[in-house]
Amino acid sequence: MPETTAKPWGETKFVGKPIPRVDGYERVSGTAEYPSDVVLPNMLHAAILRCPHGQAQVKRVDLAKAREMPGVRAVLSDADKEAQIPWYAPPGSPGSTGSPTASRLFDPHCRFEGEEIAAVAAETPQQAWDAVRAIRAEYNVLPSVVDMEEALKPGAPAVQESGNRWGAPRETKRGDVAQGFAEADVVLEETYRTSCEIHTPSEIHGSVVRWDGDHLTVWDTNQGPFGIQAPLAAAMSLPLSKVRVISHYMGGGFGSKLNLGKYTVIAAVLARKTGRPVRLFLTREESFRAVGNRPAHIMKLKAGVKKDGTLTALQLTGLGEVGAYPAGTSVGYQVGDLYRCPNVLISESQAFINAGPNRAFRAPGFPQCSWALEQMMDALAEKIGMDPVEFRIKNYSAVCQMQQNKPYTSAGLRECLTEGARAFNWKDARLRSKGSGPWVRGVGVAAGMWGSQSGPPSTVRVSLYPDGSASLNMGAADLGTGTKTVMALVVAEELGVPLDRIQIENADTGTTEFTRPSGGSKTVFADSPAVRSAALEVKARVLEMAAAQLKLPVTDLAFQEGAIVAQGGTRKLAVRELTQLRAQQVVVGVGVRGPDPVDKVVRPFVAQFAEVEVNIRTGETRVLRLVAAHDSGRVMDLLTYRSQVIGGLTMGIGFALTERRIMDAVTGKMANANCHDYKIPTAKDVPADKTVIPIDLHDTECNTTGTKGIGEPATIPTAAAIANAFYHATGIRITAAPITPANVLTLLEERRKRG
Amino acid sequence: MPETTAKPWGETKFVGKPIPRVDGYERVSGTAEYPSDVVLPNMLHAAILRCPHGQAQVKRVDLAKAREMPGVRAVLSDADKEAQIPWYAPPGSPGSTGSPTASRLFDPHCRFEGEEIAAVAAETPQQAWDAVRAIRAEYNVLPSVVDMEEALKPGAPAVQESGNRWGAPRETKRGDVAQGFAEADVVLEETYRTSCEIHTPSEIHGSVVRWDGDHLTVWDTNQGPFGIQAPLAAAMSLPLSKVRVISHYMGGGFGSKLNLGKYTVIAAVLARKTGRPVRLFLTREESFRAVGNRPAHIMKLKAGVKKDGTLTALQLTGLGEVGAYPAGTSVGYQVGDLYRCPNVLISESQAFINAGPNRAFRAPGFPQCSWALEQMMDALAEKIGMDPVEFRIKNYSAVCQMQQNKPYTSAGLRECLTEGARAFNWKDARLRSKGSGPWVRGVGVAAGMWGSQSGPPSTVRVSLYPDGSASLNMGAADLGTGTKTVMALVVAEELGVPLDRIQIENADTGTTEFTRPSGGSKTVFADSPAVRSAALEVKARVLEMAAAQLKLPVTDLAFQEGAIVAQGGTRKLAVRELTQLRAQQVVVGVGVRGPDPVDKVVRPFVAQFAEVEVNIRTGETRVLRLVAAHDSGRVMDLLTYRSQVIGGLTMGIGFALTERRIMDAVTGKMANANCHDYKIPTAKDVPADKTVIPIDLHDTECNTTGTKGIGEPATIPTAAAIANAFYHATGIRITAAPITPANVLTLLEERRKRG
Repeated sequence: MPETTAKPWGETKFVGKPIPRVDGYERVSGTAEYPSDVVLPNMLHAAILRCPHGQAQVKRVDLAKAREMPGVRAVLSDADKEAQIPWYAPPGSPGSTGSPTASRLFDPHCRFEGEEIAAVAAETPQQAWDAVRAIRAEYNVLPSVVDMEEALKPGAPAVQESGNRWGAPRETKRGDVAQGFAEADVVLEETYRTSCEIHTPSEIHGSVVRWDGDHLTVWDTNQGPFGIQAPLAAAMSLPLSKVRVISHYMGGGFGSKLNLGKYTVIAAVLARKTGRPVRLFLTREESFRAVGNRPAHIMKLKAGVKKDGTLTALQLTGLGEVGAYPAGTSVGYQVGDLYRCPNVLISESQAFINAGPNRAFRAPGFPQCSWALEQMMDALAEKIGMDPVEFRIKNYSAVCQMQQNKPYTSAGLRECLTEGARAFNWKDARLRSKGSGPWVRGVGVAAGMWGSQSGPPSTVRVSLYPDGSASLNMGAADLGTGTKTVMALVVAEELGVPLDRIQIENADTGTTEFTRPSGGSKTVFADSPAVRSAALEVKARVLEMAAAQLKLPVTDLAFQEGAIVAQGGTRKLAVRELTQLRAQQVVVGVGVRGPDPVDKVVRPFVAQFAEVEVNIRTGETRVLRLVAAHDSGRVMDLLTYRSQVIGGLTMGIGFALTERRIMDAVTGKMANANCHDYKIPTAKDVPADKTVIPIDLHDTECNTTGTKGIGEPATIPTAAAIANAFYHATGIRITAAPITPANVLTLLEERRKRG
Repeated sequence: MPETTAKPWGETKFVGKPIPRVDGYERVSGTAEYPSDVVLPNMLHAAILRCPHGQAQVKRVDLAKAREMPGVRAVLSDADKEAQIPWYAPPGSPGSTGSPTASRLFDPHCRFEGEEIAAVAAETPQQAWDAVRAIRAEYNVLPSVVDMEEALKPGAPAVQESGNRWGAPRETKRGDVAQGFAEADVVLEETYRTSCEIHTPSEIHGSVVRWDGDHLTVWDTNQGPFGIQAPLAAAMSLPLSKVRVISHYMGGGFGSKLNLGKYTVIAAVLARKTGRPVRLFLTREESFRAVGNRPAHIMKLKAGVKKDGTLTALQLTGLGEVGAYPAGTSVGYQVGDLYRCPNVLISESQAFINAGPNRAFRAPGFPQCSWALEQMMDALAEKIGMDPVEFRIKNYSAVCQMQQNKPYTSAGLRECLTEGARAFNWKDARLRSKGSGPWVRGVGVAAGMWGSQSGPPSTVRVSLYPDGSASLNMGAADLGTGTKTVMALVVAEELGVPLDRIQIENADTGTTEFTRPSGGSKTVFADSPAVRSAALEVKARVLEMAAAQLKLPVTDLAFQEGAIVAQGGTRKLAVRELTQLRAQQVVVGVGVRGPDPVDKVVRPFVAQFAEVEVNIRTGETRVLRLVAAHDSGRVMDLLTYRSQVIGGLTMGIGFALTERRIMDAVTGKMANANCHDYKIPTAKDVPADKTVIPIDLHDTECNTTGTKGIGEPATIPTAAAIANAFYHATGIRITAAPITPANVLTLLEERRKRG
């Protein structure tokens, strides 16, 4: 048997180079078919009536007029038996076990503005919306609460019958914080606040649904079709074999497309009712309200440090928004593990408010935590007169304190800080003149880490054809992150097949095998080893064929760049010369990624540096320069890697400076549910001066491709680095994100008043 | 390791029962999307200008006016460099090695009426046809020859420059026929003729083609997408990875859809030229002329027999039509192997004529051979005064004489004859009154065999999901024969999953693995063992999971009807209770069928019985009753099996009574290229009284499912049985098929004259 065990790559030919997307042509030319592009013969269009109040009981839904509107083919409400499907948490969805399912698809008790009340399918989208407007719904409007602190006060309007606190506070403890604070030379305490952000992907949420008999096919924009298939099958009471979800292309998710959406189930019920395909895509406004968000957090952080920079204690008390239905986000992780600290106490609570449920959002909880922890680290460093970079290096931990001090497979935080500081010219930049106004300048640093638990195995196929071309069959979606390109690179590297000779089929539960949805920066980490394993199996089988044909021992042969070579490097056979391959037309390798390391922990690390200028007359803040140094293991494709980091930095800028859901406390409605009033950063907000520094410590233990994950780390510390630079520029600690001109002016005014 | 070796099935729960099609709903309701149903956004429609002469040199093709016609987007002729693609035999197609490729996609030398000259792509089909009519082509009309005997005469018009005889006569020899004839008590010699038949599948040939960058996707109606992909890739100079052929549904082929069609390549070139998808489906008239046929044959057969019924010698001299381009059909096989005979001499020639090339047609060459051999057997039996059934049984062979007398894995010809005769009530039926006119009745028998060489291995996947449902992924097309149903039955049998919980993905080179195209009755024979092997692997993995979970030895457990049972039959776990399966969401088995038997030969056998009545005043012949007894190994699905046999009998009726291509000797044109003048049998031509008798000898050596193949055997002896019944009714040996009223009246008149 030839060798199929994966050894670490040495010199690589494809992996690590800056390679353009394999589907670049399709994406740029428009031939790529996104779910929102799908047009089926005879397709109907659907629209949803949503609750216009922060909280209300639906008294009556009169569908009579809507039914008679031109083009209307079906109207659906909670009165229809087939629509009485339990929801929140969706049956079969992650986290549904033990969760309340007190709600339904169209629940008469609407707990947030935008909750679904009825739906229409009609011949055109316009007719569907006209019919939605013709539905007469009567409401018993209830008081609502949209602020988590208000929600926990006695007498607050009840979001959930069981009370507005979701479960008991969760506590994590290490050592004794009281003792730690007693040992400290400096103890600081501060309360930090972050705002609720909306995912706003380019392609809005929606599905196209078709029934063939009792087989359901769904073109859906999501982060992994296998994450939709199972809960959808459960919702429709179908076996998995009768539900096919296809997501060949999709236009971004950032965590908001990991879960089954109500819109998909509504479309499925309407399609079954009408016997016709149904297209149901949300409007931008609907997506602001109903399909998820990064919840706001309030974080009280207390920290103790010795004069020499040794952390003695960290205590975090966190309160987070849940939205109206159970969906939790924890912010404690980095407090417990990023820096060496013997005494830690983390206590987290979450509160229901009358708003759409939160959803995983690029590094759920981590940018919030960084906002607090990294500003606190900055303040501590200042108090003890230590450079913030050195202070962080001083407290570097090479072991995972939350997991019995298991060592990391690699832990490049130190290198991220030193290499990043060097590229940023940190020391000089700190000393440079800040200017005298109205524009003042400052620099800041922040660090972070991310978890890479990998979940269930994925199964991937790689096939080699007699003309030397290949194909790759995998369940993973490509969220625009370059997954297809990265995985194809693994095939290219192992089989020596050029990228443009690799056909890719992906993200279709009907044609590919199970893998987790893309989230948690786990796709490359978990799936690239599976691809490598499949390619190695192909290689092994090709060598067996060659050995038989050449009558040589298989151990004397190697497969290099699409040809079989003997010892000494003599080329023996091209793939096209393999008679057995020509006869059977294909060699198939099936790969499953190997087990995770048992005694070690895999974590990516990051340090980011920002330079900002603040106008102390107008309150404007501009980011001038960013350096991002990441230990995410091996870089698979330098182009997509860089794009991922820049995307993360951009989101971080939004989190720091512009993005905030504004809820009206009186009506419980969202006041800025559109892209005009809710500001996401544009190209003009992103500095031209950006440096991306990959730190590769040649991790051979994390997995067989040496990869850890880059998508989420890239956005974790950005906002905190900007906040620290803001402080450096202005001397003002801005504890509440985002740093809007109004906030800045208020703080400047307060300082002026304080004198 | 649990047992994965396939043992022969014992009692079956699914296999062998009469099971309706798994895709019956889709096929009957119209939701099944056939290639001819595919509508792509922005799709153009194409049409082809074809040569209107039997043979001609194209002097000039003026496309100017066509280009200016409304809606025209591209016009293509041999003047376009990109259309100068070698053809006949298509590059990469079976049999292309060493074949002349003297022709091109649009060759200026047209050798048959209907050969391609130019093509148009336009916004609508009507505009495309209008533009085709606007093309001004000038021809140098050449003499043509449409009769194979004429073609071989000196001075005949040249179809191919190398001469009208295709290669040297091929000879097969066993023993010494001269000695055999010398030893015989009776020697008979007769010349038999069969007519050229057209396949006429319900769905006419055509493709829809789309380019994404340099990736080509083709929805094509064919008998297996992998048979189209490779030659298409070669024609377009693309790697296999860039050519995807999809054939989820198709509307019949009968051998005419095994090969790449010019229409597919024309559509691909037009689509590349216009940057838009192109649909090109032929008209019924075009399909009559250009996409294949069962060639006419002239067979001189000489046979010697002893008085006791022992065959002593068989000598066949065959001449077959090729059409205008190389494409051979041999008729000798059954002469050499169906009956025990020590002395055999087969000599076959083939001649080019000015007509479309022949193509494999349901049992290529075999019905022609049966027409001769089985009428000869009937005549010999009569001469020596032996019952035709007993005469055939007397000459039964249990070994394959053409392959060094290797035994057959099973050889049920004797059982087919005896069981068929019993069901037909043969002896009584022979003695019954024939009537006194104008309608006279008679009965006949004919036997046959078929070859099942299996070719390269196929790779199949079976997946089991945690809810107990499953999926089947296979490359094979379902030609309407029930392939999907039969293969799903194997999964159901092994895994205990009901048929409606098995999802099937098939016949897509982009999502399934290689298998041969469906032809030669090899699909069930070759692919069902692969499916079984994949299902057994799933079973083995499920047992490993169960053993680990239950902490029991795997050898103590069995997987029965979707559950794990311990020794003694105690149910231990349902599939849904397997924690490892719930974690990884799927178990995948990859199956490849095992090797063919080495020392034995696999052959299906058949005997069919017909009762006819002939009107001696009008010449009409009606089939009253048919009995078909088949040894095709195990019956997988009694319903599809029966349908296959009835379909074969129906085609046999057409071959015997109605179907004949009529070529005009003066112009070289086909005179009946439409379904009005070319008669295929309808429901009214098929007798209500049909009996299908499966003979199952429980063959455990042919493969792991015990199957041999039914599609082609079903049509092999039908026409011969009808001819023998015609003779029994009328006393007239009708040597030339089809038995039309005109032929019958001529023969009756001749007999009357002879007195």
